Amino acid sequence: MKKIDNCKIIIFGASGDLTKRKLIPALFDLYCQGELPKEFSILGVSRTEYSDEEFRKHVDEGVKKYSERKENDPKLLEKFIKNIYYLAIDTAKADDYAKVKDKMSEISKESQKDNYIYYLSTPPKLYSFIAESLQKQGMTEQNDQTGWRRMIIEKPFGYDLDSAKKLNQELFNFLKESQIYRIDHYLGKETVQNIMVFRFANSIFEPLWNQKYIERIEITSSESIGVEDRGGYYDGSGALRDMIQNHMLQILGMITMEPPSVFEANAIRNETLKVFQSLRQMNKEDVDKMVIRGQYTESKVKGEKLKGYREEKDVAAESKTETFVALKLFIDNWRWGGTPIYIRSGKRLPTRVTEVVITFKNTPHNLFKNSAVNQLIMRIQPHEGLLLKFGMKNPGAGFDVKAESMDFHYDEIKEYVPTAYERLLLDCMMGDQTLYTRHDAVEACWTFVQPIIDAWKENPEIKVYGYPAGTWGPMEADNLIEGEDLTWHYPCKNLTNDDSYCEL
Amino acid sequence: MKKIDNCKIIIFGASGDLTKRKLIPALFDLYCQGELPKEFSILGVSRTEYSDEEFRKHVDEGVKKYSERKENDPKLLEKFIKNIYYLAIDTAKADDYAKVKDKMSEISKESQKDNYIYYLSTPPKLYSFIAESLQKQGMTEQNDQTGWRRMIIEKPFGYDLDSAKKLNQELFNFLKESQIYRIDHYLGKETVQNIMVFRFANSIFEPLWNQKYIERIEITSSESIGVEDRGGYYDGSGALRDMIQNHMLQILGMITMEPPSVFEANAIRNETLKVFQSLRQMNKEDVDKMVIRGQYTESKVKGEKLKGYREEKDVAAESKTETFVALKLFIDNWRWGGTPIYIRSGKRLPTRVTEVVITFKNTPHNLFKNSAVNQLIMRIQPHEGLLLKFGMKNPGAGFDVKAESMDFHYDEIKEYVPTAYERLLLDCMMGDQTLYTRHDAVEACWTFVQPIIDAWKENPEIKVYGYPAGTWGPMEADNLIEGEDLTWHYPCKNLTNDDSYCEL
Repeated sequence: MKKIDNCKIIIFGASGDLTKRKLIPALFDLYCQGELPKEFSILGVSRTEYSDEEFRKHVDEGVKKYSERKENDPKLLEKFIKNIYYLAIDTAKADDYAKVKDKMSEISKESQKDNYIYYLSTPPKLYSFIAESLQKQGMTEQNDQTGWRRMIIEKPFGYDLDSAKKLNQELFNFLKESQIYRIDHYLGKETVQNIMVFRFANSIFEPLWNQKYIERIEITSSESIGVEDRGGYYDGSGALRDMIQNHMLQILGMITMEPPSVFEANAIRNETLKVFQSLRQMNKEDVDKMVIRGQYTESKVKGEKLKGYREEKDVAAESKTETFVALKLFIDNWRWGGTPIYIRSGKRLPTRVTEVVITFKNTPHNLFKNSAVNQLIMRIQPHEGLLLKFGMKNPGAGFDVKAESMDFHYDEIKEYVPTAYERLLLDCMMGDQTLYTRHDAVEACWTFVQPIIDAWKENPEIKVYGYPAGTWGPMEADNLIEGEDLTWHYPCKNLTNDDSYCEL
Repeated sequence: MKKIDNCKIIIFGASGDLTKRKLIPALFDLYCQGELPKEFSILGVSRTEYSDEEFRKHVDEGVKKYSERKENDPKLLEKFIKNIYYLAIDTAKADDYAKVKDKMSEISKESQKDNYIYYLSTPPKLYSFIAESLQKQGMTEQNDQTGWRRMIIEKPFGYDLDSAKKLNQELFNFLKESQIYRIDHYLGKETVQNIMVFRFANSIFEPLWNQKYIERIEITSSESIGVEDRGGYYDGSGALRDMIQNHMLQILGMITMEPPSVFEANAIRNETLKVFQSLRQMNKEDVDKMVIRGQYTESKVKGEKLKGYREEKDVAAESKTETFVALKLFIDNWRWGGTPIYIRSGKRLPTRVTEVVITFKNTPHNLFKNSAVNQLIMRIQPHEGLLLKFGMKNPGAGFDVKAESMDFHYDEIKEYVPTAYERLLLDCMMGDQTLYTRHDAVEACWTFVQPIIDAWKENPEIKVYGYPAGTWGPMEADNLIEGEDLTWHYPCKNLTNDDSYCEL
């Protein structure tokens, strides 16, 4: 385990939900495990007027509600909270950043040298402005005297290919790539990281992990909630930008990458980049055939009325924003040539689940009347684990094949499983960029997504299919799956049916 | 499902233990499931004087004690028992077989045509004599008028290569190969048959099933009991003849055979024969290095004294008969070239278990500090099932690998699992020889075993290692395993330790 340098974390946009719900609780959980450096402090920066004490009270509530370690000794929390400070500034005003510098000097009055993590939990339009303003205060330069400076940037990283490129360019005026940590909290999940361990620490899966043995790959990430109070943001974004471009393509990268030669950030990021660069570009005609978009409509689930998307707060009454996307793609390389890959994500689906389903090809020759479906399901959330489906002999005379399965669940491991933010904050403190997205990967993912954005914009006749809230999206999504009678793997049934069940 | 012809089963040696404990209970269990033909009867033949009624009483007790269906309606048993008859003859007297013919005419007085299964549960020296005597009565010829005639022969089939060849030759004077059913009750076990389904109904295991991915294969069959009251027989036989030559090589055949092109008796038996013919012959020098033999000695398990083998009833005081064999072998073919295969069997080991352990090679490149052991354990008995060991990510920072496993157990299937004898008797009634051993396979297995027998006979200096009853045999057996610090997979600890446990 690497030693963790003393460091200070400065959160911009600290009065927001993320800080209270995720960041401070994650830092507290790290603290409880003794994984924070000996000297650390946290400075919240935002427009809202708080005193240090008021802010401490605000985040104290958050820890008590959201920390995984909330059962811990209250004295530990008291001690932790003392390391938290707050500063109200107008983050859109360059001069105000002098106050940040002053406050930091005040906090770390004794140390000559200090390491800073800037956590940007602000609207994206402020990202490069904050970097610029910090630079003006001399707060981005790092050397042996000053200590290191790192910046964590929340999604969305760009709105399309051009804006992502522009943002990268702007940031590079003030920071080096090695200082920029583009966070994708999906990569912080244990089970996402386990994809690499599963593939590369075992000898038995990798030989099967290619077009020769795999029939198709499905990646699903569904949410059961709707847009809630984020209608204003979401209506300008949609599922393609919000989920596919980042989280789901990153998971795809982990699933399909070549083994790196060393297990280091850049070696791994080189390999996932190669996948993103090998994604077959859709032309605008393909989009209508390869991508299905949908939007949830009003429905009734167990007697309760669920709103349609267009009735949500801050959503345009005739919005065409997709709350569901399902698409088929190909990776044009030696390993995956010809293997269809299916990705879908949506809101107001029957359940919250993220899973990868690998369906293997049939046996080359059928010896038995029926043959077995071989599937490996990697459940990323919830109830993280693995399920392997195979055929066994049906007891009794003859040699009939019966579908069976075996599974492994992470909760069988009695150890503490850190949350995504814990893992990613700790990695940033250690200077490990493995689970952060590199500039070229971000751009490569946008390059894949851009033709879809363009086609939808240019061809309003491409349908936005309605689907009743609580169902698995438009039925047209099943038509994407190659092969007669084949459908997506459904982790559970539509809620508008009565007998919903979960398989894994 | 094939229709089952009406048939009559004639058991020679019917007063013995096998009939009471296994055969009649198995037939009753088939009867309960409606799997016996509409018209069937069973004739017990032996020296012991019984009337039909006495024999019925005798086997009725057996069914009540040993049947899997003993909880069934007692009226069903009553009805079943009425189909059982008995005839006392001197089975060593050719003329007495006329009585068998008469009794059968009596039983089946109404039918012109009848199908017979002769089940030989007698000492092996009588096998060909019974066949000859039946032939003299015209009872082995089969045609459309008479119905079919099949003969099931119990083990041991020969005492060495020469005697096995001789027995085959003699039987061929009276019966065709298609009439001879050499039973190996291990092949009747669901989980042994499942080996073929597991391998050939799934696409994901077969690509790994060769020397390229498999490091070694272990097959263990252990018994916790000693020789009990079979000391007289066993002392002239030993573990090599009693277990290795038949059961364990048959399991090896299933594990290592090429996929047949059709799932039919001869196609499958051709493939297992090819394995037996590819077993690398040991020369006499090899035997000392590749085979470890042992004999159990007196020990104390949980305060109870366990006899040594030489103190068992009917065992010679200076017997060198092996109650334990462990050996290393190679299959010289394209699939298995260079993969060491280890087989062991013994009595008075810590537990009764039969299992196949496939250890896969390490990853070709180690990306992580530690790498995972990939093992597939096929448990044939007891608690039949599968266990797959692999590595997963250890939760928390870094990418440490943690050994995990997932398993499947047959008892999760709620269906009735027929016993080996049920399955094999039913197969014989249906004329399916798949799970019976063909003459050439028997001889090929003896061909492999013969040099070991010869070496032991000719070189008395080859050690018989003692091992305390209740332990996993002589420690020298571990030296067979290629690779430093590697040992056999131990399903549980020695009983002479305190903390015995079972892994699967």
